[in-house]
Amino acid sequence: MMNKELMTAKILEAKVSKGMTWEAIAETIGLSPVFTTSAALGMNSLTEDKAFALCEVLDLDKPIAEALQVCPKKAWDGAVPQDPLIYRLYEVVGVYGDTIKELIHEKFGDGIMSAIDFTMDIEKEENPKGDRVVVTMNGKFLPYKAW
Amino acid sequence: MMNKELMTAKILEAKVSKGMTWEAIAETIGLSPVFTTSAALGMNSLTEDKAFALCEVLDLDKPIAEALQVCPKKAWDGAVPQDPLIYRLYEVVGVYGDTIKELIHEKFGDGIMSAIDFTMDIEKEENPKGDRVVVTMNGKFLPYKAW
Amino acid sequence: MMNKELMTAKILEAKVSKGMTWEAIAETIGLSPVFTTSAALGMNSLTEDKAFALCEVLDLDKPIAEALQVCPKKAWDGAVPQDPLIYRLYEVVGVYGDTIKELIHEKFGDGIMSAIDFTMDIEKEENPKGDRVVVTMNGKFLPYKAW
Amino acid sequence: MMNKELMTAKILEAKVSKGMTWEAIAETIGLSPVFTTSAALGMNSLTEDKAFALCEVLDLDKPIAEALQVCPKKAWDGAVPQDPLIYRLYEVVGVYGDTIKELIHEKFGDGIMSAIDFTMDIEKEENPKGDRVVVTMNGKFLPYKAW
Amino acid sequence: MMNKELMTAKILEAKVSKGMTWEAIAETIGLSPVFTTSAALGMNSLTEDKAFALCEVLDLDKPIAEALQVCPKKAWDGAVPQDPLIYRLYEVVGVYGDTIKELIHEKFGDGIMSAIDFTMDIEKEENPKGDRVVVTMNGKFLPYKAW
Amino acid sequence: MMNKELMTAKILEAKVSKGMTWEAIAETIGLSPVFTTSAALGMNSLTEDKAFALCEVLDLDKPIAEALQVCPKKAWDGAVPQDPLIYRLYEVVGVYGDTIKELIHEKFGDGIMSAIDFTMDIEKEENPKGDRVVVTMNGKFLPYKAW
Amino acid sequence: MMNKELMTAKILEAKVSKGMTWEAIAETIGLSPVFTTSAALGMNSLTEDKAFALCEVLDLDKPIAEALQVCPKKAWDGAVPQDPLIYRLYEVVGVYGDTIKELIHEKFGDGIMSAIDFTMDIEKEENPKGDRVVVTMNGKFLPYKAW
Amino acid sequence: MMNKELMTAKILEAKVSKGMTWEAIAETIGLSPVFTTSAALGMNSLTEDKAFALCEVLDLDKPIAEALQVCPKKAWDGAVPQDPLIYRLYEVVGVYGDTIKELIHEKFGDGIMSAIDFTMDIEKEENPKGDRVVVTMNGKFLPYKAW
Amino acid sequence: MMNKELMTAKILEAKVSKGMTWEAIAETIGLSPVFTTSAALGMNSLTEDKAFALCEVLDLDKPIAEALQVCPKKAWDGAVPQDPLIYRLYEVVGVYGDTIKELIHEKFGDGIMSAIDFTMDIEKEENPKGDRVVVTMNGKFLPYKAW
Amino acid sequence: MMNKELMTAKILEAKVSKGMTWEAIAETIGLSPVFTTSAALGMNSLTEDKAFALCEVLDLDKPIAEALQVCPKKAWDGAVPQDPLIYRLYEVVGVYGDTIKELIHEKFGDGIMSAIDFTMDIEKEENPKGDRVVVTMNGKFLPYKAW
Repeated sequence: MMNKELMTAKILEAKVSKGMTWEAIAETIGLSPVFTTSAALGMNSLTEDKAFALCEVLDLDKPIAEALQVCPKKAWDGAVPQDPLIYRLYEVVGVYGDTIKELIHEKFGDGIMSAIDFTMDIEKEENPKGDRVVVTMNGKFLPYKAW
Repeated sequence: MMNKELMTAKILEAKVSKGMTWEAIAETIGLSPVFTTSAALGMNSLTEDKAFALCEVLDLDKPIAEALQVCPKKAWDGAVPQDPLIYRLYEVVGVYGDTIKELIHEKFGDGIMSAIDFTMDIEKEENPKGDRVVVTMNGKFLPYKAW
Repeated sequence: MMNKELMTAKILEAKVSKGMTWEAIAETIGLSPVFTTSAALGMNSLTEDKAFALCEVLDLDKPIAEALQVCPKKAWDGAVPQDPLIYRLYEVVGVYGDTIKELIHEKFGDGIMSAIDFTMDIEKEENPKGDRVVVTMNGKFLPYKAW
Repeated sequence: MMNKELMTAKILEAKVSKGMTWEAIAETIGLSPVFTTSAALGMNSLTEDKAFALCEVLDLDKPIAEALQVCPKKAWDGAVPQDPLIYRLYEVVGVYGDTIKELIHEKFGDGIMSAIDFTMDIEKEENPKGDRVVVTMNGKFLPYKAW
Repeated sequence: MMNKELMTAKILEAKVSKGMTWEAIAETIGLSPVFTTSAALGMNSLTEDKAFALCEVLDLDKPIAEALQVCPKKAWDGAVPQDPLIYRLYEVVGVYGDTIKELIHEKFGDGIMSAIDFTMDIEKEENPKGDRVVVTMNGKFLPYKAW
Repeated sequence: MMNKELMTAKILEAKVSKGMTWEAIAETIGLSPVFTTSAALGMNSLTEDKAFALCEVLDLDKPIAEALQVCPKKAWDGAVPQDPLIYRLYEVVGVYGDTIKELIHEKFGDGIMSAIDFTMDIEKEENPKGDRVVVTMNGKFLPYKAW
Repeated sequence: MMNKELMTAKILEAKVSKGMTWEAIAETIGLSPVFTTSAALGMNSLTEDKAFALCEVLDLDKPIAEALQVCPKKAWDGAVPQDPLIYRLYEVVGVYGDTIKELIHEKFGDGIMSAIDFTMDIEKEENPKGDRVVVTMNGKFLPYKAW
Repeated sequence: MMNKELMTAKILEAKVSKGMTWEAIAETIGLSPVFTTSAALGMNSLTEDKAFALCEVLDLDKPIAEALQVCPKKAWDGAVPQDPLIYRLYEVVGVYGDTIKELIHEKFGDGIMSAIDFTMDIEKEENPKGDRVVVTMNGKFLPYKAW
Repeated sequence: MMNKELMTAKILEAKVSKGMTWEAIAETIGLSPVFTTSAALGMNSLTEDKAFALCEVLDLDKPIAEALQVCPKKAWDGAVPQDPLIYRLYEVVGVYGDTIKELIHEKFGDGIMSAIDFTMDIEKEENPKGDRVVVTMNGKFLPYKAW
Repeated sequence: MMNKELMTAKILEAKVSKGMTWEAIAETIGLSPVFTTSAALGMNSLTEDKAFALCEVLDLDKPIAEALQVCPKKAWDGAVPQDPLIYRLYEVVGVYGDTIKELIHEKFGDGIMSAIDFTMDIEKEENPKGDRVVVTMNGKFLPYKAW
């Protein structure tokens, strides 16, 4: 079985040689850019039809379509990310974590926002003072219930 | 000078005894709920007029209005948050960090989303299968430029 | 507002002086022993009626009933627990984590067991070779879904 | 001698090509699915007859049967697991660790639940609101005794 | 309830003012010096009669006898001990850990030495070239068994 | 020069193919099983004659005898060992460290037990309730002396 | 695609065989020495024309020019740098961090110095008592603004 | 003796009530703003005359002047700073550390920039696109010399 | 019993008010400055006569003399020291550790330098180019011996 | 370019086959044993003539002489060294760090001992009770100066 690291390398190579964007690949296979990219990077799995659709658009063969369907073991480097782009998101969680907790409890009661029943979207907001990145996270509220 | 911990404790106490929500406090002083809450929790500073407005609505006295204006030293507990609600956000950064990086680079080029020139909004999306939390982050794109 | 640490200390003190077990307290207020104990230790919140019921059975006053209703900030000591009883559970997660992952994926597909929509039960199994502890965890399966 | 990593890779490959589940393999060799999987993943050892039985059902040769009998050096990645499925179990230990300790002491006295004289079972509970994962741990109580 | 830290402080104070050794205290109450000391330091609990016996010999009152009976939450400072005496023991585990594992597996098969069903003894071996410390650990072998 | 990792691998291989135990190898070369095993695992060095004796009994050639004489750089994985057998020893150091310190100070005065001028022995104690592992450590007492 | 590590190795090799300094390379391609070096070490990306200019001056081929244009994933070794030259800079941040914070707040109000919209320059200041290193950092002030 | 924490608190209080800036205080006592602030924050010591000068301008009494002269034990929170302003400086060391090392070696040979024989200056550079922070570090080059 | 922290504070206070140096105190009581200082800082213990001698010269009373005789539990802040003076020593161990190991093995064979049977001396070497600190460590060589 | 790891391996191999000590090599090239060994282990660089001298005495070729001249990136394993010989030195820094700081401040004023303008010497002191290791460190005192 092909592992996820090799699968990702093959997809990135094909993507560059085809000159396609993640957005275009995602549109072709009928999924969002975020989910498609995360599956290609080995952090989510695709259903059989989506896996083959992705391989078709990038002219990749069957072992890659199979690897895309495997349940991933999710992991990342270190407790604190170092890349500046990713660190800024970590910093937001640190700085605003308790604020988010206060406001979710105020609106929903005791519980959490699911990171599994979850979608995310990344948009560009054009702005004369400098374009802006808009990240929208949408997760199901899971209440704690006594038993 | 009153420190931020005591300031936060006093604000939380007044908020409970007044029976106000963060949303109501924020609306009264003309700021967003996220920013208002983060300032009350000691993670942001308010301008003089907003600080006094917040104290007026909660019947708090001058030392608290002064403490609200002090530039905060931001800090949080540990590298990996333990509270389940905050951990889920950390997990999202871990699982989707590289995906977000790929898509921002695709849309904007090399650079980052600012966590300073930044706003955040938390909304409740009603849903018959279970309400959903919608977190929207909006940060200025800062390009790396050669010199 | 009374904090959770003081609340827990008061409950433990009352429990000892009343000579009650967690099991008896739980039965009186109509909740499971695990959930009742976790709320008393400050790791879960009770609804108003359950909070007052717990205080009634232990002759505790209103501030404790209020503290029991507050959404907790969950935290624990260190990344690796040191107490031998708790460490053994941590070791089980380390030794059998990948096994559990394999078997859940085999039975359910890609997803996780929720730790929020979750119940737990602890029983004593009498055995002539030495009694046994039976811990049963029951959590909703949350599937990853593409979007 | 074949090491455990290679042994596991060979077993996973054979399992996929045979199209067998862990449950089916376990049943064939007369052991539980949890124990069988943990041995295949290199976290437990098998007796000679079970090792050869497993190899027979998967058409694997002698070096793998030998590797399955070697006492494993157990290890896992990092102090805090990152995969969401395994992290949720870690979180349960963190959130409910003291609760479990209280209740075991209440039922058994001072001591621990063994992680060695220990069995585990994972079941699927069908439920119209969403199926549930049921994990049952059964460990011998080991009392502390003065000497 | 008196906590273990205060209990230990009171016992140490009484021990100094009585001028007694741990060995003498242990002999009086009919337990080993190691177990007696570990209970006095808050790492083990005593049965009611032993707790009262210890308090009698040191002229301590009832709250201390009660604290001695409480199941302890065991914890120590840091992952790597810094005190030179304790570090040397940690170093022995690091340097000889795999050796001990090899030899226990050779003599007993796959399993561990229990740290719960366990006794320890510390003796002085007089020697003209310099006296020697003899630490003897005796723990039940717990075999891994398939299920 | 052959490094210690390769040396250990060669020795383990030869030991298995010869079907010898550590005990038997140790007896043949006139050293204790613990020291012999630790040298074979690369944590101690042998004198020339013992190194050649070990190689003779296992039919190993000169580079291995040379590698056995090299002063080792001792190292182990992580601050907290994860293998259950080795972890239990670490736990003993954590739980009983201060106790051992108290008793050594009581018997010897201020100082430590050497981990260099040190021997260790591992024995099996047969017991109808379950055999027991007996680990005896014997280290020279090194007193702190003022200068 | 060539990765950044290989790219850096090829550039360093060519730089040595050409006998060029970073300063000379930077001047040739019309960028500062700091930025040029950081891009060559894989910590920044170049525009297409600068990437080809750098390759021309060092007689390197197209894959290296392509690798120079890739958005880097920035990472460094460990939380605390060990090389003495780099550690001294880390120590300066530790020792003077709060001082810098006080003075930036005094001059600019609440906000930060950007590490993205940022330039750096390293100069040699000749001095009879020993030459001095002058590091100048110039980053845009980013104010926190309420929303 | 007054400790540095209390000394700093007293100075900050006096500074606020006097309404003075660090810049003004520094100018009055004839030292740079960076050094003056760092001494007031307890990270450097002042000579007797400067210590009394600082106390005079802020109407502080003798124990504070004495505390300012004590050699400080320098320490900071955690290995990785969390405050965003200070983190950005840490990130610069991470991202540009090897670059700085390359360029210092190119200009000076093997050695380091001293963090002791060292000065620092922080300036505001007005800029229509947004003011800029200019941090200048000036440290003596210390060459490694063979012996 | 007075703890070591309070003991140290009292000694430092008396030392300042008497205007004595460590060197002078050490000479009076007939011990080296390093050992005397380390005992006063709580890292070593004194014999009864030396403890009373130290208290006499500083006009301190009996509880301090008693505290000086207690076997210390040695501990320090963090794994990596932050104070620049102490860090430089740590860096020397990191940079030259393997070198020291090579040379000790070359001169003495396999073994270590004791940190217990150990003395240290700190001298000032006057030098027109800048005075120098000379630290001399003298520890007994402890050979590893097979058993 | 040959890297430092390979360079070290080649030097160690040549040293063994020539049967030379570090002391002898150092004497031949006219440097101290400590500096020579540290350069051979890749922690310091040699000037061109010394590098070629070292290669001549060991019959090594030009790439090694070149690698010896490269400015090293100094690094070591982990924050806390594990090898017992090196750990003892680390322990000395922990136990005596504050003592050394006190005494250097007493003799020299506020400042540090340089680890760059630094020499070290390791000698054997013969002693009938057991030979002793004498490590002498000699570093320039660098005073903190206000600016």
